[in-house]
Amino acid sequence: MSRSAAAESSSSLHFFLAARRSELHGLEHLQAICELVTNVCQLVHVLQKERGYSNLYLSRRHQPHHPLLGELQEQSQHKDLLLRRLLERMDKELTEGADRARLLNCIACALYRLEGLQPLRWQIRECRTSTDEAGREFTRLIGSLLSVVFEAADSALDADITHSLVALFNFMQGKELSGQERALGVMGYMAGHFNQDFQQQLRTLTDAQTRSFALFNQHAPTAVLPAWDDVQHYTEQVQRLRAIALNTRPGDLLDHGLAEVWFELCTLRIDAMHKVEHALASHIEVQCQQKIDAARLEMDNHQLQLHRLKDKADTHGNSARIFNIQTRPFDLPVQDGITEELERSMLDILQEQQLLIQTRDDALLQAKRALDERKDIEKAKWLLVKHHHLTEAAAHDRLQRAAMENGISLADVAHQFLEQLAKQKGTDKPARP
Amino acid sequence: MSRSAAAESSSSLHFFLAARRSELHGLEHLQAICELVTNVCQLVHVLQKERGYSNLYLSRRHQPHHPLLGELQEQSQHKDLLLRRLLERMDKELTEGADRARLLNCIACALYRLEGLQPLRWQIRECRTSTDEAGREFTRLIGSLLSVVFEAADSALDADITHSLVALFNFMQGKELSGQERALGVMGYMAGHFNQDFQQQLRTLTDAQTRSFALFNQHAPTAVLPAWDDVQHYTEQVQRLRAIALNTRPGDLLDHGLAEVWFELCTLRIDAMHKVEHALASHIEVQCQQKIDAARLEMDNHQLQLHRLKDKADTHGNSARIFNIQTRPFDLPVQDGITEELERSMLDILQEQQLLIQTRDDALLQAKRALDERKDIEKAKWLLVKHHHLTEAAAHDRLQRAAMENGISLADVAHQFLEQLAKQKGTDKPARP
Repeated sequence: MSRSAAAESSSSLHFFLAARRSELHGLEHLQAICELVTNVCQLVHVLQKERGYSNLYLSRRHQPHHPLLGELQEQSQHKDLLLRRLLERMDKELTEGADRARLLNCIACALYRLEGLQPLRWQIRECRTSTDEAGREFTRLIGSLLSVVFEAADSALDADITHSLVALFNFMQGKELSGQERALGVMGYMAGHFNQDFQQQLRTLTDAQTRSFALFNQHAPTAVLPAWDDVQHYTEQVQRLRAIALNTRPGDLLDHGLAEVWFELCTLRIDAMHKVEHALASHIEVQCQQKIDAARLEMDNHQLQLHRLKDKADTHGNSARIFNIQTRPFDLPVQDGITEELERSMLDILQEQQLLIQTRDDALLQAKRALDERKDIEKAKWLLVKHHHLTEAAAHDRLQRAAMENGISLADVAHQFLEQLAKQKGTDKPARP
Repeated sequence: MSRSAAAESSSSLHFFLAARRSELHGLEHLQAICELVTNVCQLVHVLQKERGYSNLYLSRRHQPHHPLLGELQEQSQHKDLLLRRLLERMDKELTEGADRARLLNCIACALYRLEGLQPLRWQIRECRTSTDEAGREFTRLIGSLLSVVFEAADSALDADITHSLVALFNFMQGKELSGQERALGVMGYMAGHFNQDFQQQLRTLTDAQTRSFALFNQHAPTAVLPAWDDVQHYTEQVQRLRAIALNTRPGDLLDHGLAEVWFELCTLRIDAMHKVEHALASHIEVQCQQKIDAARLEMDNHQLQLHRLKDKADTHGNSARIFNIQTRPFDLPVQDGITEELERSMLDILQEQQLLIQTRDDALLQAKRALDERKDIEKAKWLLVKHHHLTEAAAHDRLQRAAMENGISLADVAHQFLEQLAKQKGTDKPARP
């Protein structure tokens, strides 16, 4: 490095521009993550469809293999392949950073579960698994893919895009709960009755959907609301069959044919939901590009502004002074108005940026608060795993049961559990390292 | 990329190891940041000394230039140069990440103020500035360097090192307040009296020191406490002269000679403090290396463990199955115990890691809470800048005045101000993007 280049690279100007570049990198990285999220979202959609038809196929054993099921399996495999190709393309982008352990681990979990899908498909085809068992495997896999979307939202460095990702995550979760509700309904209608346990599970799934869609609504950009309105149309129809299921009494026998009707209606509703996901993903894509363009423009403006300051100084023969005041001869006092003015300008720009970063960070923190609920649930779950040596699934079931028994949300159970634990631990004085 | 390499790079194993590597990168980056912090700490120390002697020189106009002052100026310039060289060496490391805007902007501010030091030195030598004015410039510069340490602490990804950096930041802040107290005392003793305003300022500085050192104590590793005990010895002596200053009444005239005694005692105390800083910086260096070694060992262990799983599979002729279950022929059922066992092991490792990351992240969050106080102060300051069109310094003065008038800490003023503002804004519903 030449002497002047070296001096340049330790100047305030250099770091000022590096800070802007760092913001730009952050947005470019976010754009890549959003592309990953879009792919995950599409894969989840076909997996949900595949789960639905696998469920239908398994619950009517000895019927011919549903032609749609084979088609859906192929679609899933195709989306799986697309996701893997994207991951390969993004490899450097994804794996080179320092703060990615959570996201990368989530991706590893999701891929691990995806790798287990092929044997499951064989078991389904051969009817060597139950509706329950197969459904659970699909649900775990979809859950691990949702975690990737959650981590993407939690690692986003832009408030507006975080809002959109929070909306998308909650929407995907609501849609996933609708898928689980569809499966549960099929089982009930197929069996011809809903016992109290089934009804309780149905109510839990409905309440959790309401909560997820409310959060979606709170964070969603207005652009996607028309697509959401279309979903309501099907929700009303599903609601009617839900009411039938919830109002059956022990001994009532329901028409088996309703299973098909229920399945079709739920599927129409879920497909309408996929349009919302699609609109949301497109919106996020546009948002990312706009943010990147704005950041680039801001950088160009800054460079222009700084060059203008430099030109102004050059006209007055003070070229070296603005950016590297240290090169000013020791004996030369600051007395010309021009340099003083330029220094103020530079300081103004620096302080303006500090304020801007502060404002942005506050907005980001605010947007991320929406993720706290799920974090509480995850935290409570892992504490159960740790302290009671449960599996992840068993810990989740225990929280879920507590929520059902007390008629409160999963998030509230988790929150109460964590508060109780904090009280037991007494004052939270950090341990001396 | 060959087909098998491509398959490998989208496998769960690849991402699992990438997550571990990301943690390692995070620690290596943190090590570099800690080296930067050590350099900033040393520069701040000589700047504090230079401020002290500049102060002494300016307050006794027309006396010969203090020989120590020239020496200290040279020392400062040397440390400044060392810092710049380090920044040049670290350039790639520092400026390539995505989430560095705050830190980089803080570095830019600090360098900008450093660039203004040479003209200030000329003004001091020529007595073209006042004790007050010169002191304020130094204090602003040191403040901007402290911000770099704060941002380093806030961006650290390891809980233990965050605790140490929080301890170091608070200690440096306490030491800086001691330096400001020294300057104030010199002015008072030089003038021969302390008026009420001076006394109030002295009390504020003492209270703020107590607060900073308490936070240091809460987060400091035990290894540095012996060095801290040595400081107490001088604190007691400084305390006696402090009491004299605080108990003078209007009209009392103090011995001018006390200025020298006060200066010497405060200087001995501050030099003893520098030893604590040094011990703390060394401790952090060791901590970083230990964490990196542990992370490397963990990675090696994981790789070993995974290879062992693979070998075990090879012995049973199932080599391809463990890491890429998807390659298993579609028609082959899962029925051999070995593969099942290996799959469980891989899932165990993945879930263990998820739990570990969760635990680490919680500890990190807990450690960072110690930074909230200062964040509140910064936030309140910037809101004043924004809404009342004040300069940063004026905003800080306004908060400081409010704290003094109400006899509460700066952090409490900031907290109350933010709460009031939040109440005015009503419910904090996030705006729809």
